[in-house]
Amino acid sequence: MAKDNKKMVDAITSMDEDFAKWYTDIVKKAELIEYTSVKGCMVIRPYGYAIWENIQRILDGMFKETGHENVCMPMFIPESLLQKEKDHVEGFAPEVAWVTHGGSEKLEDRLCVRPTSETLFCEHYANIVHSYRDLPKLYNQWVSVVRWEKTTRPFLRSREFLWQEGHTIHATAEEAIEETERMLNVYARFCEESLAMPVIKGRKTDSDKFAGAEATYAIEALMHDGKALQAGTSHYFGDGFAKAFEIMYTDKENKKVYPHQTSWGVTTRLIGAVIMTHGDDNGLVLPPAVAPIQAVIVPIQQFKEGVLEKARELEATLKAAGIRVKVDDSDNSPGWKFAEYEMKGVPVRIEVGPKDIEQNQCVIVTRHNREKSFVSLEGIEAAVEGKLREVHDGLYKAALENRERRTYACTSMDEISDVLQKNGDGFIKAMWCGEEECEDKVKEATGVGSRCIPFEQEKLSEVCVCCGKPAKCMVYFGKAY
Amino acid sequence: MAKDNKKMVDAITSMDEDFAKWYTDIVKKAELIEYTSVKGCMVIRPYGYAIWENIQRILDGMFKETGHENVCMPMFIPESLLQKEKDHVEGFAPEVAWVTHGGSEKLEDRLCVRPTSETLFCEHYANIVHSYRDLPKLYNQWVSVVRWEKTTRPFLRSREFLWQEGHTIHATAEEAIEETERMLNVYARFCEESLAMPVIKGRKTDSDKFAGAEATYAIEALMHDGKALQAGTSHYFGDGFAKAFEIMYTDKENKKVYPHQTSWGVTTRLIGAVIMTHGDDNGLVLPPAVAPIQAVIVPIQQFKEGVLEKARELEATLKAAGIRVKVDDSDNSPGWKFAEYEMKGVPVRIEVGPKDIEQNQCVIVTRHNREKSFVSLEGIEAAVEGKLREVHDGLYKAALENRERRTYACTSMDEISDVLQKNGDGFIKAMWCGEEECEDKVKEATGVGSRCIPFEQEKLSEVCVCCGKPAKCMVYFGKAY
Repeated sequence: MAKDNKKMVDAITSMDEDFAKWYTDIVKKAELIEYTSVKGCMVIRPYGYAIWENIQRILDGMFKETGHENVCMPMFIPESLLQKEKDHVEGFAPEVAWVTHGGSEKLEDRLCVRPTSETLFCEHYANIVHSYRDLPKLYNQWVSVVRWEKTTRPFLRSREFLWQEGHTIHATAEEAIEETERMLNVYARFCEESLAMPVIKGRKTDSDKFAGAEATYAIEALMHDGKALQAGTSHYFGDGFAKAFEIMYTDKENKKVYPHQTSWGVTTRLIGAVIMTHGDDNGLVLPPAVAPIQAVIVPIQQFKEGVLEKARELEATLKAAGIRVKVDDSDNSPGWKFAEYEMKGVPVRIEVGPKDIEQNQCVIVTRHNREKSFVSLEGIEAAVEGKLREVHDGLYKAALENRERRTYACTSMDEISDVLQKNGDGFIKAMWCGEEECEDKVKEATGVGSRCIPFEQEKLSEVCVCCGKPAKCMVYFGKAY
Repeated sequence: MAKDNKKMVDAITSMDEDFAKWYTDIVKKAELIEYTSVKGCMVIRPYGYAIWENIQRILDGMFKETGHENVCMPMFIPESLLQKEKDHVEGFAPEVAWVTHGGSEKLEDRLCVRPTSETLFCEHYANIVHSYRDLPKLYNQWVSVVRWEKTTRPFLRSREFLWQEGHTIHATAEEAIEETERMLNVYARFCEESLAMPVIKGRKTDSDKFAGAEATYAIEALMHDGKALQAGTSHYFGDGFAKAFEIMYTDKENKKVYPHQTSWGVTTRLIGAVIMTHGDDNGLVLPPAVAPIQAVIVPIQQFKEGVLEKARELEATLKAAGIRVKVDDSDNSPGWKFAEYEMKGVPVRIEVGPKDIEQNQCVIVTRHNREKSFVSLEGIEAAVEGKLREVHDGLYKAALENRERRTYACTSMDEISDVLQKNGDGFIKAMWCGEEECEDKVKEATGVGSRCIPFEQEKLSEVCVCCGKPAKCMVYFGKAY
């Protein structure tokens, strides 16, 4: 077994040696993606897509519980429509793919492939929202969007990516702001409860706002290498889009007024976040809630009488308990299988051989810490469920510890530079005066950009870390994916 | 109530008066779609999309049960890749949308927005299939595709439409043919069991084959107006694509050989089929399996004490039994609600008012035949489930009767013309020699094209309906959507 394991371990680069290479090794060897001849786009393979299906299923349930409905907008946006909101078009036009011909016919109005769908939702809302009785509309769609990125990396930044985009429209600013916050909280809860990934909730600085938004909120996570990753965003638009698209409704006093809007999204980037939060040098480590296979059963000496039968029996028991389970009865050696499912990040491995059967037990190994225990086959469902919770809790705890260990409160520019040089990347907490100039200077001088103004504020000092003028708030800085 | 109902009924065109107008009235007034400024594309609204989500959920379960896995390919295909299979590019190139620019940069190799993804799957298979151990691959994806149609109609023919496309690759021709047939059977079973829509299974004539296929199989349904609708297709490719894309594998004898492929798909067109199979002059009629709301509870005199409470109690009971149920407690009158949910095709309506509560009963009305019955609240779940089955069976029976009534066996060209003139559109069963020339002549002379060569053959005569030479098979002819 040791030898087999070593073979697989050798096959991927160590994360300490080259984190970027470790990452791309994993996405390939765990069979999450494959490259294509379409530059910057990828095939999401069955194992990778099954993770996304689990993410979708859980999030979609949370959206529906909070009153949202799914719709589907066209994938194209006419250039004239994209141009209706000034900031929005400035933000997105430089990075869209343009359709200029349909068949052999040249189009009069070019179409872009949606980079995001605010403009389409606004056009639709202008058609269907007339009275306060029509509000709110709480819509979402699960689609792919295209942004013509120059440098790309699987899941983290690709020209086409899968996402969901929520778009809501409300009678009042208060309701819309409440929605923006509600969905940020849904995202944070999902990341913590389903991805075992702690996140910082906060507001983006003005320089980092979504094109056309009044305020952008985000959840920020810290990856294993100390770099930050924006895991989800929620935007409050005020009535800016409503004005640009002439969406008006008649309120209860029979006056024509503008409604207020939001949008919010998470993407397949979450899969990248999972890899870089929990993975190790043996491969992927998946949080149980989104793992395509939660428990793999490896029969030991599977050609001996009764072993495969017992494995199948176990599989049926666990399946009936709602656990996603698989028996690997292939010709490969147990050692090969151990390494394979470690690479694929399966949270729990169950080994069952002739000796175990004799003693009515099996061996359970948890992926994240490789702890091994002997467990009675009596009541095995509860035992496996317990192990899955253990994996989730263990992953969350380790991720939180990593983030805490790598979060530094700094009160001067020199301190930021020193801390980063000494410890490598991480979150820097520092006070800020609110001026974009200082934000830029911090980035220039130390390499870390503002990630967000966290909702949970601390007072590290009275003055801005950069200019020394009175501070307005504490900011998280970091290097970002 | 009668008055309210009339108001809604007046709002849609009668199907006997103008079937096409009746259809577009329904898709708009039942809030299935809305038009957009993107020509030939539409917004699928929450109620329409919820039907698609149900179709997806059921079909996806059937695909997974038969061993298929979901993946996601890029939405773009480089022109050079599309051109690799000669017949395929000829079939699709004239109707694709071309992306020529990414941001401000002109692309060297134009990209088309996928009209179908055989070429991308082939490129991927060439990368991952090397040995007989890698076979079969049974993949599917749920995406949208684009075909630059000249005339479009919601759900039936649009420039962008949602679909699933299965793409499989097998060691032998036999296995691939078996898969092609298996998936056609899955489609037929789904149409019958979930859409209450009987279908004819058969093979397309050569002139109607998919571009690049050796054989195309289809399921054909007959709409209320006697026109035929192709509801799903399954293609057998032989090794043609494998040769064009140089996909080879090493077999058990260590020889390099070509694998065999299939593809199969159904689209949002199925929603159009449901509308035109079951709908009536009061609106949509939905088969229970895919209805977003299976039962609507309309409280009568809802402001009287206890009525809304009882309605909510009933809702909770039915929900717990797995029935998709909704209480409409809005200010609208019961009559308005009756008409509204008839328009939306909700299979079962439950009325509950003070008198019913007194007698511990409710009124149940089934949408398809407007039959009314008094049902005890004791064991109401089973009663509603029974009513839902009744609706399904009633819809299926009516659709089958419509098809049988409108299917005509003809043995001469004159008979075809006469039958169509006398009875209007329908299926014509006739013998055929197998020559494309005769197929064309039938269409020219009588207006009906070949729909399929049904698996269930009959011998109506010895000779071709057109040329009088010996017949090879019986063909279904019809006018098609």
